[in-house]
Amino acid sequence: MTLESDLISWLEQHLPPSPRLAVGLGDDAAVLAACQQSEQLVVTTDMLTDEVDFLIDEVEPEQIGHKALGVNLSDLAAMAARPLAVFVSLALPRQGVGSRGIGLPGVTRLSPLDLAIGLYRGMLPLAEQLESTIAGGDTNSWEGPLAISITAIGATTAAGPLTRSRGKVGDQLLVTGQLGGSILGRHLLVEPRVREAILLHEQYELHAAIDISDGLALDTSRLAKASGLGAVLDLAALPLSAAAHQLSAVDGHSALEHALGDGEDFELVLAVSGEEAERLLRDQPLGVAITKIGELTQQLGLWQLDVDGIPTPLEPLGYQHGGEP
Amino acid sequence: MTLESDLISWLEQHLPPSPRLAVGLGDDAAVLAACQQSEQLVVTTDMLTDEVDFLIDEVEPEQIGHKALGVNLSDLAAMAARPLAVFVSLALPRQGVGSRGIGLPGVTRLSPLDLAIGLYRGMLPLAEQLESTIAGGDTNSWEGPLAISITAIGATTAAGPLTRSRGKVGDQLLVTGQLGGSILGRHLLVEPRVREAILLHEQYELHAAIDISDGLALDTSRLAKASGLGAVLDLAALPLSAAAHQLSAVDGHSALEHALGDGEDFELVLAVSGEEAERLLRDQPLGVAITKIGELTQQLGLWQLDVDGIPTPLEPLGYQHGGEP
Repeated sequence: MTLESDLISWLEQHLPPSPRLAVGLGDDAAVLAACQQSEQLVVTTDMLTDEVDFLIDEVEPEQIGHKALGVNLSDLAAMAARPLAVFVSLALPRQGVGSRGIGLPGVTRLSPLDLAIGLYRGMLPLAEQLESTIAGGDTNSWEGPLAISITAIGATTAAGPLTRSRGKVGDQLLVTGQLGGSILGRHLLVEPRVREAILLHEQYELHAAIDISDGLALDTSRLAKASGLGAVLDLAALPLSAAAHQLSAVDGHSALEHALGDGEDFELVLAVSGEEAERLLRDQPLGVAITKIGELTQQLGLWQLDVDGIPTPLEPLGYQHGGEP
Repeated sequence: MTLESDLISWLEQHLPPSPRLAVGLGDDAAVLAACQQSEQLVVTTDMLTDEVDFLIDEVEPEQIGHKALGVNLSDLAAMAARPLAVFVSLALPRQGVGSRGIGLPGVTRLSPLDLAIGLYRGMLPLAEQLESTIAGGDTNSWEGPLAISITAIGATTAAGPLTRSRGKVGDQLLVTGQLGGSILGRHLLVEPRVREAILLHEQYELHAAIDISDGLALDTSRLAKASGLGAVLDLAALPLSAAAHQLSAVDGHSALEHALGDGEDFELVLAVSGEEAERLLRDQPLGVAITKIGELTQQLGLWQLDVDGIPTPLEPLGYQHGGEP
């Protein structure tokens, strides 16, 4: 037997059956059930790699699997798409890995198969919760470190896709949840705002959205730029997480800096009209808080309100992929 | 600027516009134009890694990019699906790579951006030729070697998906092209049989198909097994490539062994009724030869015809992913 066939055997026993799959594991490709005519497909792909997105010897494979799926579903959430199917490619270290679970004593040695199964065990509950069928993948071993690439396919709801680019001047900027300090653990426990996004997109008129993967400041500036606008943030209004405060107490950066630049919050930034913002803030229709944090402006760039309410330039802090050190 | 934003700038200049994309690069996910009602989606993903699928310092990035896209499109071909869109995730060595083009003197040092652009340059002509839109991706740098993960999305034609599992007892096994010795170069020059598969599936009644990625013997045994059957190969009938003969002259294995076990031919094995086989062999409707090589049998397992026409067991030679050394 081989790694790939052993893993497929395991998956055949552990993946729930899905009416969405006309042809599932074990053929050259997966076949998804016929499309609904008005649907558009929304597709995203995100690769996670050792030492960049996680530290293999400090976390459990289950946590890595959860995160890898979560960040992809968070991108679908940002487009208000309903997840359909996900595809998982793994590059597994041939010699296996040492894995030290957080808070667990000692290091466990995991074979490539054990590692792969652990990754899938981490994906399965989230996939089930958000009704995304694990529909296929590719499993490789090699001399390199662990890399996981996931592609998530979703469908638009009746409200169509939600994009970054349709924000309007004067739109209020809202954010879900609390921000900053995700490195203390929340970055692994991604809760992609899939249901929240679909609910909001169906019941309110959202102009634009983005998920916070690289930092509030950077991602907000991306939304503004895609809409051909600028943005001003009311820093006093940012919802700071407990983790942002905890981190601030030990590293000398303010909780506000963490909220602006940490990234991996996987919350949503929304641009809506003033009227719709009022309605949303009054209704608070989600299990998680919605907070008003700023506004889209004709003036390009990213700005903050100073104590006198005057906009001054704000650096778009955040994680730049492949940025110069 | 960063690696990812630099690459997106390059792609925006070099990717042809596509009517299939409602939302392209630069949002959280790509949005594909609305589905046709009767279509089913066919999705495959394949990851290529350094030292397993290519040797980074012996080939050009363009060749790697071509191969990575080609092997994915070959999986769509095996299902007779029309390519729609592909998504490309890259893990690029942060320090860059030394690249020595075949036949070129010396080693060129490539930055991660140069490497990524080279990979995409290799994909673009094949993507255009087979009308597969490069619709999105994810670009990472890390301390590990090069890994490329591609997900290809296709749509079934009016004839529906072609699978491995609907072969019937007595079906003739046909193969396109010549087999063996792909390591001498053809494995990099994948010509996925996308158009050929669609033409055959529309004009002939094909029962089952698989593409030869891991070796004729192994992949034929997979098709037979998926159909709940066995297969007998007429070894004297196998179309041996010139490369299989060349390799045989230097390594002591016969050209036949190379044709059976080398893999990465990316030709198609087809199972069709006797009548349809006759018609196909007479018509020869492709630019590449179709050859009859065997038959599906009630008796499970893989078999060969000996000189007296008696079936004897044949080992399913081929490349086993993650197999024990």
